[in-house]
Amino acid sequence: MNDSQPSRKPDPVLGPDQLERINAWWRAANYLSVGQIYLMDNPLLREPLRPEHIKPRLLGHWGTTPGLNFIYAHLNRAISERGVEMMYIMGPGHGGPGPVAAAWLEGTYSETYPNVSRDLEGMRRLFRQFSFPGGIPSHVAPETPGSIHEGGELGYALSHAYGAAFDSPDLVVAAILGDGEAETGPLAASWHSNKFLNPARDGAVLPILHLNGYKIANPTLLARIEHDELDALLRGYGHVPHFVEGDDPVQMHQDFARVLDTCLDDIRQIQRRARADRQTGRPRWPMIVFRSPKGWTGPAEVDGQKIEDYWRAHQVPFDAARENDTHRQVLEDWLRSYHPEELFDEAGTPVEAVASLHPEGHHRMSATPYANGGLLLKDLRMPDFRDYAVPVPEPGTGAVESTRVLGEMLRDVVARNPDNFRVFAPDENNSNRLGAVLEATDRTWNARRLPEDDHLDPGGRVMEILSEHTCQGWLEGYLLTGRHGFFSCYEAFIHIVDSMFNQHAKWLHTSNRIAWRRPVASLNYLLTSHVWRQDHNGFSHQDPGFIDHVVNKKADVVRVYLPPDANTLLSVADHCLRSRQYVNVIVAGKQPQLQYLDMDAAVVHCTKGIGIWEWASSDAGAEPDVVMGCAGDVPTMETLAAVEILRSRFPDLRIRVVNVVDLMRLQDDAENPHGLPHRAFDALFTTDKPIIFAYHGYPWLIHRLTYRRTNHGNLHVRGYKEEGTTTTPFDMCVLNQIDRFSLAIDVIDRVPRLTDVSAHAREELQNKLIEHRRYIRIHGEDMPEVRNWQWTASAGPANRRPDEARQEPV
Amino acid sequence: MNDSQPSRKPDPVLGPDQLERINAWWRAANYLSVGQIYLMDNPLLREPLRPEHIKPRLLGHWGTTPGLNFIYAHLNRAISERGVEMMYIMGPGHGGPGPVAAAWLEGTYSETYPNVSRDLEGMRRLFRQFSFPGGIPSHVAPETPGSIHEGGELGYALSHAYGAAFDSPDLVVAAILGDGEAETGPLAASWHSNKFLNPARDGAVLPILHLNGYKIANPTLLARIEHDELDALLRGYGHVPHFVEGDDPVQMHQDFARVLDTCLDDIRQIQRRARADRQTGRPRWPMIVFRSPKGWTGPAEVDGQKIEDYWRAHQVPFDAARENDTHRQVLEDWLRSYHPEELFDEAGTPVEAVASLHPEGHHRMSATPYANGGLLLKDLRMPDFRDYAVPVPEPGTGAVESTRVLGEMLRDVVARNPDNFRVFAPDENNSNRLGAVLEATDRTWNARRLPEDDHLDPGGRVMEILSEHTCQGWLEGYLLTGRHGFFSCYEAFIHIVDSMFNQHAKWLHTSNRIAWRRPVASLNYLLTSHVWRQDHNGFSHQDPGFIDHVVNKKADVVRVYLPPDANTLLSVADHCLRSRQYVNVIVAGKQPQLQYLDMDAAVVHCTKGIGIWEWASSDAGAEPDVVMGCAGDVPTMETLAAVEILRSRFPDLRIRVVNVVDLMRLQDDAENPHGLPHRAFDALFTTDKPIIFAYHGYPWLIHRLTYRRTNHGNLHVRGYKEEGTTTTPFDMCVLNQIDRFSLAIDVIDRVPRLTDVSAHAREELQNKLIEHRRYIRIHGEDMPEVRNWQWTASAGPANRRPDEARQEPV
Repeated sequence: MNDSQPSRKPDPVLGPDQLERINAWWRAANYLSVGQIYLMDNPLLREPLRPEHIKPRLLGHWGTTPGLNFIYAHLNRAISERGVEMMYIMGPGHGGPGPVAAAWLEGTYSETYPNVSRDLEGMRRLFRQFSFPGGIPSHVAPETPGSIHEGGELGYALSHAYGAAFDSPDLVVAAILGDGEAETGPLAASWHSNKFLNPARDGAVLPILHLNGYKIANPTLLARIEHDELDALLRGYGHVPHFVEGDDPVQMHQDFARVLDTCLDDIRQIQRRARADRQTGRPRWPMIVFRSPKGWTGPAEVDGQKIEDYWRAHQVPFDAARENDTHRQVLEDWLRSYHPEELFDEAGTPVEAVASLHPEGHHRMSATPYANGGLLLKDLRMPDFRDYAVPVPEPGTGAVESTRVLGEMLRDVVARNPDNFRVFAPDENNSNRLGAVLEATDRTWNARRLPEDDHLDPGGRVMEILSEHTCQGWLEGYLLTGRHGFFSCYEAFIHIVDSMFNQHAKWLHTSNRIAWRRPVASLNYLLTSHVWRQDHNGFSHQDPGFIDHVVNKKADVVRVYLPPDANTLLSVADHCLRSRQYVNVIVAGKQPQLQYLDMDAAVVHCTKGIGIWEWASSDAGAEPDVVMGCAGDVPTMETLAAVEILRSRFPDLRIRVVNVVDLMRLQDDAENPHGLPHRAFDALFTTDKPIIFAYHGYPWLIHRLTYRRTNHGNLHVRGYKEEGTTTTPFDMCVLNQIDRFSLAIDVIDRVPRLTDVSAHAREELQNKLIEHRRYIRIHGEDMPEVRNWQWTASAGPANRRPDEARQEPV
Repeated sequence: MNDSQPSRKPDPVLGPDQLERINAWWRAANYLSVGQIYLMDNPLLREPLRPEHIKPRLLGHWGTTPGLNFIYAHLNRAISERGVEMMYIMGPGHGGPGPVAAAWLEGTYSETYPNVSRDLEGMRRLFRQFSFPGGIPSHVAPETPGSIHEGGELGYALSHAYGAAFDSPDLVVAAILGDGEAETGPLAASWHSNKFLNPARDGAVLPILHLNGYKIANPTLLARIEHDELDALLRGYGHVPHFVEGDDPVQMHQDFARVLDTCLDDIRQIQRRARADRQTGRPRWPMIVFRSPKGWTGPAEVDGQKIEDYWRAHQVPFDAARENDTHRQVLEDWLRSYHPEELFDEAGTPVEAVASLHPEGHHRMSATPYANGGLLLKDLRMPDFRDYAVPVPEPGTGAVESTRVLGEMLRDVVARNPDNFRVFAPDENNSNRLGAVLEATDRTWNARRLPEDDHLDPGGRVMEILSEHTCQGWLEGYLLTGRHGFFSCYEAFIHIVDSMFNQHAKWLHTSNRIAWRRPVASLNYLLTSHVWRQDHNGFSHQDPGFIDHVVNKKADVVRVYLPPDANTLLSVADHCLRSRQYVNVIVAGKQPQLQYLDMDAAVVHCTKGIGIWEWASSDAGAEPDVVMGCAGDVPTMETLAAVEILRSRFPDLRIRVVNVVDLMRLQDDAENPHGLPHRAFDALFTTDKPIIFAYHGYPWLIHRLTYRRTNHGNLHVRGYKEEGTTTTPFDMCVLNQIDRFSLAIDVIDRVPRLTDVSAHAREELQNKLIEHRRYIRIHGEDMPEVRNWQWTASAGPANRRPDEARQEPV
């Protein structure tokens, strides 16, 4: 127990009846947990256990579950007594039997899944379905009522909890953190989230560090450092730790109840000071260290091997209960030790003493709408993105930082949605040119402030911490509880959260198949500071592979956009912010860049997602000699510059320029619901002409997306092929052969009627490349003709304005 | 300064001469740092600064650099006085000008790059090359002498430092940790590395937390929590923190020197106790908190805006020095404030007072062989992997956990290489069936131990922490300082270190182009608990995409192996452990599985990397009707089962089975040096017959690797397509249509002469799938005919033994 106050022997806070009811709940939840892991029939042991009652494949995790059930029972008492809104984030998500048992005891499970009724037959189904074909996963998952937090990959419980608490002033999020999870980097970083919590406007997070001492096969670090170190560590994280430690259930119940009351009182007082008394300053929030035996209440030993309070209790403590009579007897004794006959009535329904512990309706943690965020989701109040349009008098001119324009729109989204929209970035919001949002809000900051500080405030809505993991975790928690957000990141470093993206995408995909899960707002990434403009960072900062990673996930949950300029970026961002249940990846540069489409043309282009740029093409609507495809801002510029070069040398060459904004359009509609039908694709790219495609990322992705297309054999893709260093912007293109000269050479090499006649032009272009290399080594910057290039292709009959765009058959 | 002892005013530890020399070094390093960022000519200001002396593109990071230089100077004094071996890991790697300046001052730079001589012309080149086309990156990189730690992506400095210190008893690694980096998850987790350091056998790590208060645009958390919190946090991490805080150089020099002496004394004492006195128990290692102004000694203000001690000093403090006369004057005044005329002689060489500070030869941190680990690398003493061979009397039989067999070999590698080989895993070594290594060693553990603990010892060589980041960081540091290692991980969760893999692969690729960087041992991953056998984990644990991520990197540094059984796994692992400068990814299951090749056949097969399995084929060396390709253990088993089904139904169907171990063989040799020439590929896969390919991972990767192949149009790939849940092993295959029945149907649908005649067989197979679904929902496990399946295809004329393998034209 709380050994920071070891001198007095406290009075028990639970009366005998309360103690009895909490303990009965706990026994019931433990019984149901063991039943889920082992049994497929005879759920209430109305007959002796026989082999056929035991599942043939025993799967699940027992070790952490009794502790989780213990905490859940105590939180239920507190909710009932205080009427507080609580949510249960279960870091040790493999303890899946626990929250399922709780939801069933509370009735939520049967309300959600009527087949699993709250009676004997329902209990049989509850047990059987667990980790069983056609049933439910063994860990917390979208199928679990009351959860927003997948069990399995560890490290995100606390950042999810804070994400849920932001802008939820009435919510207390209990975040159960396993001591295994506590070894992960993402969890270690997220402790500092308390410097971003505003007690006046946000809810509270109550971390409960659950020390049960062991991982799969090893002790845990935090259970094996000295007490003074653990205490110091948690105080260093900004918390006041309260310790509950032991293995005697009665004493532990009293201790936990007392400490929980203290913590909830302290939280209430902190919030009252901030809200009523308007006290500022960062509070030191309370937290609980709960040290209990792993596999508590389970068998102490089996076959002479220590189980309880040891790592062997981690998963299924013994696994031959079907074949081995002794094991089966151990199991039966274990189950009967909870006295199910006292906990469930003849019908198999929880008795009143158990059922009366939990709160009612949406106060049940298993039924809280916070854990089904779509129920709480409100549409964003969106400004009209057309109001931020950049004028484009001539296509391919200007020098606009497109993300800066987006920042103006985001500023107004922030201003119009002061309660349910936040912007996230790992210290890169301004670097990514989204600084305009600071005209409407501040950076969230509740640590010490100095007079010279710039836009720091506890109430700020720009969340910056130099931890992509924490940003992502906060945002996921925020979205899954029914709000909206926007995450900007350096392109290369978004790989830091590859695995978090995986888990979120899988959560969305599974949720799409679960009727009661309501759609939530999409997770929107802006990837900028991208591979082509790492001007002073170089090779280590060049990686466009997040797109490849993303498109491995199901087409129903991922979208990738490559808007080439400001107006297309505005249109795409508007679409993404309004969407639901997607992960949207937008890749756009932050450097000054050419602008191509006025707003009307941008809207048309983004709506189609792919299209011919007539104004840049010279095929005059006829069959072209070559198609030049492009996707991404820099590849688009280089393609157009190549077109200009080619048109000046070969005035009668029929070039068609196809720009791709929505990468998924390249796939066929049989593979991807957003894909282009073959006929439409063929109409754009022809069935037999060479295609030179300049792509933002790794070139093979384009092949992967298009290998079923008729004309794939003629597709030649340029992109990033891991050639780079610290050099000039244009030289990066040259190193990867996606520059205008190389693209023009590609065309010459592949258009039959040019190949024979254009040795001179080819040589001229190759000399340009040599000249470029020489120039930059002397001057340290790109040749003026490249640096200052703007589109000026002569207006021929085929050179129309963007607003005259032809309607493709899309 | 150290305010944990605020009561006494300590005597100065540096005499006037020492102080002067340290300060002179610091001024020289700062001068050279500013010069690198700004100047392309007139390096010693022998004439007034003119616009053409200033680089046109100003790129680099000033803010952290003076602090880095300060620390470096002080470490040099300590090295010279104590003769200690030190290494400098620079977390704030963007302060690249600092270590380059130090290496030049120490002479190492000119020894390494003779063009950049230690004189005026060399200084001009030193300045010009920095962040300049054809020059060097702006951050620490493989090009930087003395470094093993790329600057840029933050979070790995401390785990790299510990990796370097393991088994380096004479080494003290100074790990400079920026307060920006300190917000990342990986860094936060890696503080606990001190529980894995053995003072008796390992070197020491001296963490120096460099608080300069700001990131790109925000204050840092650790600089803005209260002093008591920071002190508690660091004690909680297991350290004794010593604080050096201020901005007066003289006082800071004295304070830092005193604290550094204290720390190095404490380290020596800890090591003596552990080594001479054989004291056990975990020491509380010293560390330094160094709080100095960001951009220290730089301009206080420019254009009325605060620079020094503020986030504006982060990168280039003012950027118009070429165009703006005032800025240029600020720059000149700033440079002259270091009094270069006192620091460099007429020839531009550092004066004696500067040069005498640094140690000589390999004691120079810029020249330590630890930072060019290939110099120290010794070959592993390898057992003969054939000694662990699993007997395979009949191919396609048995039930062996292949990784368990590998564990036996690893055990003996550990035993034979007690000083330079370690095994790393995030608490999964035993779960991954590598438990045999514990017969030869223990798990590394220097936290508290209990009597019931299992194989925990400070001297253990199995490094387990539930942090993939920390495992990876340790291993990288260990490899880059010249040792060997092996990392086993759950396949899905290796994505946690996607970005770390990126950085390491890029480091290797760049190193391959740097003559003085000597090859280091490869980074070897074993990915197990893979997508097809997530029996009780389900959808969230299913992701084979690390392979896709890896193959985006340059072919010269990555290899991917999919050994289908134990003997091939042994052969592949042996090859990987002997290799240099690669990242090797081995994917292999840990569940009992069929064995196919005896050791001789396995060696032949792995040497080729791809080949026809004659014993499973029925084409009798003639042109087949269909090629069935497979890569990965489960796909191989399903393919063979499909072959058996087909051969029983269609005895005259000519099937060729091609198994792929080395995935890179699928690419052509123009794309990948390990690729198969087109002719050889065509000989295996034909030029016109249908290919049904069962692949372990996402199916489109096979298309991406083979889209240039003649017969790509007939290639039909099955693999993981994000369909999965908690279910039986075979059902996972069914859900993704890679099961034997679906593969057989694929063949029927694609072999013209079957398509018309086999409606009955097709229906029979589809009924099998229905029967399967029904069976598992009732019984909870796979049908016995599937569960117990072994290869028994009747021995026909084409059914030869594996040792009769035909030599393919490869």
